[in-house]
Amino acid sequence: MAARLKVPRAVTVFEVGPRDGLQNESREIPFGLKVSFVQGLVRAGLREIELGAFVRPDRVPRMADTDRLFADRRIRALASGRARFWSLVPNARGLERAAAAGARRIAVFTAASETFARKNIGMGIDESLAVFAGVARDARALGIEVRGYVSTVFGCPYEGKVSPRRGLRAVERLSEIGVSQASIGDTIGVATPAGVDAVMRPALRALGARRVAGHFHDTRGTALANALRALELGVTTLDSSAGGLGGCPYAPGATGNLATEDLVYMLEGLGVRTGVDLDELCRVSLDLSRRMGRAVTSRYLQAWASAAKRKR
Amino acid sequence: MAARLKVPRAVTVFEVGPRDGLQNESREIPFGLKVSFVQGLVRAGLREIELGAFVRPDRVPRMADTDRLFADRRIRALASGRARFWSLVPNARGLERAAAAGARRIAVFTAASETFARKNIGMGIDESLAVFAGVARDARALGIEVRGYVSTVFGCPYEGKVSPRRGLRAVERLSEIGVSQASIGDTIGVATPAGVDAVMRPALRALGARRVAGHFHDTRGTALANALRALELGVTTLDSSAGGLGGCPYAPGATGNLATEDLVYMLEGLGVRTGVDLDELCRVSLDLSRRMGRAVTSRYLQAWASAAKRKR
Repeated sequence: MAARLKVPRAVTVFEVGPRDGLQNESREIPFGLKVSFVQGLVRAGLREIELGAFVRPDRVPRMADTDRLFADRRIRALASGRARFWSLVPNARGLERAAAAGARRIAVFTAASETFARKNIGMGIDESLAVFAGVARDARALGIEVRGYVSTVFGCPYEGKVSPRRGLRAVERLSEIGVSQASIGDTIGVATPAGVDAVMRPALRALGARRVAGHFHDTRGTALANALRALELGVTTLDSSAGGLGGCPYAPGATGNLATEDLVYMLEGLGVRTGVDLDELCRVSLDLSRRMGRAVTSRYLQAWASAAKRKR
Repeated sequence: MAARLKVPRAVTVFEVGPRDGLQNESREIPFGLKVSFVQGLVRAGLREIELGAFVRPDRVPRMADTDRLFADRRIRALASGRARFWSLVPNARGLERAAAAGARRIAVFTAASETFARKNIGMGIDESLAVFAGVARDARALGIEVRGYVSTVFGCPYEGKVSPRRGLRAVERLSEIGVSQASIGDTIGVATPAGVDAVMRPALRALGARRVAGHFHDTRGTALANALRALELGVTTLDSSAGGLGGCPYAPGATGNLATEDLVYMLEGLGVRTGVDLDELCRVSLDLSRRMGRAVTSRYLQAWASAAKRKR
């Protein structure tokens, strides 16, 4: 019989809701609502939160207030406490904006498939890595920490299957430009645990557990099973989105980040420390969904909301 | 690092949609629709299918046509082929009806928690096992195969947590009355992979892999992660419901059987043989949902339907 289930004792839940979750919303999101959402996430115990993206406001209008968000005194107050805020930076101009807004942590990004890289960031993989090598170097010179994302590691909306070798190669190349952590992304939610094994195992061997994160989408229902497999392999950072908010504007059909509530519920059941207060998080996510008039996609949150309703 | 992912080479997907999936529907389901649903499931390659329940029609009106279904010549034609059809039988009267309708396979059921047993089947655990011991003996004398379900193994809507010891004890007692397989049920969808480990491991040791099935609900999003853990432990039969139909009328908040589409997608990704044609199954489930005016809860099926729409 298989060995006993073994997973890390503590896991960092890296919250991407305010950025990956909201970037693709068709509705306008009031600035105050964003601030109170972030405040709620911190109150619920989340410590690593991606707030926004220093991208072109005409391209991604929902991220247009990222500068204002980082400069906001309420957000700054949280940042001087235990919260660590991140933002996506696509180029040198983005880094300038991030630095001007007082951001201390940024993330750069490439893809495992050439077509997705060209369509999503307007550069091929080689070019994107050359650009981001410069951004990362300049950021570090400013004392800014740099994380990295690799998209479409398990499959591409344009090219279909991506081999584990190509996925791993992109992770390694991103790591070579000096990111503190590489987040291995299943952008369109096609991965299964066998694919996780094939990519994460060599990635962990090459980079070490602290420098690897898993970023799963629940498009086909497999995100939590993939997260479980990643945990068994020793991954200690998992990206997720409060309420299951999110998708990607350039990846057709890519709805559904792994919901933070579903992830934290499983982690609690596994006895893994997360520091997250699940009930408080549910209140925060449900409140945001209601204010936005948006359906909740997190299964745990749906069950929680229905139980809360019966209690009233 | 953890051992390589190891799962069985082939898995039996035990389809409970026509019974567990539809028993709780508020809408009337035309008889012809049920027949064509079952025909579709068989066409999609499912071989073990639970068709209905020989329960009181006034209590579970959606199952009132179970006798007619088993006696139907189209269903009989499938049963003389490779399909194996099952039905729930609550007592001696139910067994009479099953035998009269020509059913060759039945399932009996108890629970791991006393309160749930009393509310769901109107008997305590001891009494239910005494009744079902007689039903199982009489069934076998008629050449009828008997499967068994244990509900609330991982948690009870009335009593809360159920210890692995109590869950395992109920499984063992059900096994002692001679069922060919015990299906270990997470009726309200609270299990996480650690709980699966705690119950399934000793159950597999006691009963052997062929006599154990996992029956997971996706109420909190963990069903597929639990299924993955069960597979790693060597479980080779998993219950699921086409389209994610279902719930339990006596278990508040218990919506969402594990969707067959999500399960088969993961199994395919793991290289596990199932015999199921996933595209054909999606067509069947989507057609049923549309005819019933019902939302699809299977994540895979949602993604499949949205991709199919774009192709048109």
